[in-house]
Amino acid sequence: MFRDRLAADAARIQDGFDRVLGALPDSDIARAMAHACDGGKRLRGFLVLESARLHGVEDRALNAAIAIEALHAYSLVHDDLPCMDDDDMRRGRPTVHVTWDEAVAVLAGDALQALAFELVTAPESGPAEIRATLASSLAQAAGARGMVLGQALDMAAETAAAPLTLEQITRLQAGKTGALFDWAACAGARLAGADIAPLRGYARALGLAFQIADDILDVEGDAARAGKRLQKDADAGKATFVSLLGLEGARARAAELVAEAEAALSPYGTDALCLREAARFVIARDS
Amino acid sequence: MFRDRLAADAARIQDGFDRVLGALPDSDIARAMAHACDGGKRLRGFLVLESARLHGVEDRALNAAIAIEALHAYSLVHDDLPCMDDDDMRRGRPTVHVTWDEAVAVLAGDALQALAFELVTAPESGPAEIRATLASSLAQAAGARGMVLGQALDMAAETAAAPLTLEQITRLQAGKTGALFDWAACAGARLAGADIAPLRGYARALGLAFQIADDILDVEGDAARAGKRLQKDADAGKATFVSLLGLEGARARAAELVAEAEAALSPYGTDALCLREAARFVIARDS
Repeated sequence: MFRDRLAADAARIQDGFDRVLGALPDSDIARAMAHACDGGKRLRGFLVLESARLHGVEDRALNAAIAIEALHAYSLVHDDLPCMDDDDMRRGRPTVHVTWDEAVAVLAGDALQALAFELVTAPESGPAEIRATLASSLAQAAGARGMVLGQALDMAAETAAAPLTLEQITRLQAGKTGALFDWAACAGARLAGADIAPLRGYARALGLAFQIADDILDVEGDAARAGKRLQKDADAGKATFVSLLGLEGARARAAELVAEAEAALSPYGTDALCLREAARFVIARDS
Repeated sequence: MFRDRLAADAARIQDGFDRVLGALPDSDIARAMAHACDGGKRLRGFLVLESARLHGVEDRALNAAIAIEALHAYSLVHDDLPCMDDDDMRRGRPTVHVTWDEAVAVLAGDALQALAFELVTAPESGPAEIRATLASSLAQAAGARGMVLGQALDMAAETAAAPLTLEQITRLQAGKTGALFDWAACAGARLAGADIAPLRGYARALGLAFQIADDILDVEGDAARAGKRLQKDADAGKATFVSLLGLEGARARAAELVAEAEAALSPYGTDALCLREAARFVIARDS
């Protein structure tokens, strides 16, 4: 069930991107934005749409799903820059700064961030109170208390004298990948004006499990299948969940977190089966 | 009157930045954000506060004033990067990538954009309808139809086969500097839920006059007083309003635009004296 919905949601999100980005004035920036937003698993967008289905507000959720994927794409474009992670491949294709140049990559990322806020505040997302709440929470998730803080801690780790501790890596992850997962999973409740607490508990465990699975994939994965360079952290001598917990320890911790994520959904009963399946997917994926 | 209010508003905006940025987790990014937001004329923030005074909603306007200055600061930090304009000095001090490094500059700019949206959607800015409208219009002004489009046209001009025409430069300017001036001047009407048309007319003429004055300053100004490198456009062989209209022609056009800007304010009568004075200031400034 989960894989079918993920595929259907990914197709709807891609159609949305085609429409939204196709309406921009033609320029290298618009083309680079489309390049950056093409492909990927759309897991964050799926979380928006599935949490919205859970609350009966799927009809107003598409913009928020496109928005979180735009924000995620912007973070990848900037993260891939030579002055950051310096990556040439992403989602199986050359990165934006390789396809165009660094200036286009900086600007396309900047414009994608603005686009995310334009989308969540558009009338389609519902009453003004909800649109303002979506934008406010998205800004907090994206900024120097959320995703950018995580990125900064990650950059600082590269030059730190000692490898990070488990507590430090967990804090880094909570910003770098956790903040957007949190926003995505809570979006359905926010779109409905409902309590975000159960989805927040789910998202916290899911985001951490996702990062641990990423660290495992970085060690064990196949670069061609992942569509990006692997073994980066080991090459950089950076601590990861795998280096700190060992491969088996990391697998066990990820499985525990998936159980926690599933448990957090208990208020939703069987309505949340698809989200529970999504949690099991994040630690079983190969890309 | 204008200069006193500009100075008082600049001080309030700086206090606001100190409070908002002081509340962030301590990091190079937070310090770089503060560095980037320190100083400057605060003309965009003044336009927010003065247009709000005009509509009797100054009490809810401070966040929007800080937000537009944060967005402006982010655009300068990214614009100064080696892959963009490659500038070492800004507001009389070393730029962010010189003081820290390029990664910090990319991330601090990214976080400042998010901060701008966090500020305009915070409860202090008024009812939800107004906060959603502020965020939506700000996103449009900042993105690939507004400021980023202008930046991209500006980058493309550097490698274009022929110098830009007056029409092309005007379009570039409308994005690069005009979009934020437009948002800033209209913010007071938006905060009050009033008609933005007169302020929009004012802002369009003011923004263009500002850019022409910048081009004149680039040729005639004193780098120490301006706090940044000058004669960049001439060195790069780029067309400017001065190269297209001549120095006297550019001065005459700027004066015409100031008269247009003042005329657009006629619905406000004598209440708009300070905004009229601001329009005269933008073409008389020396930095």
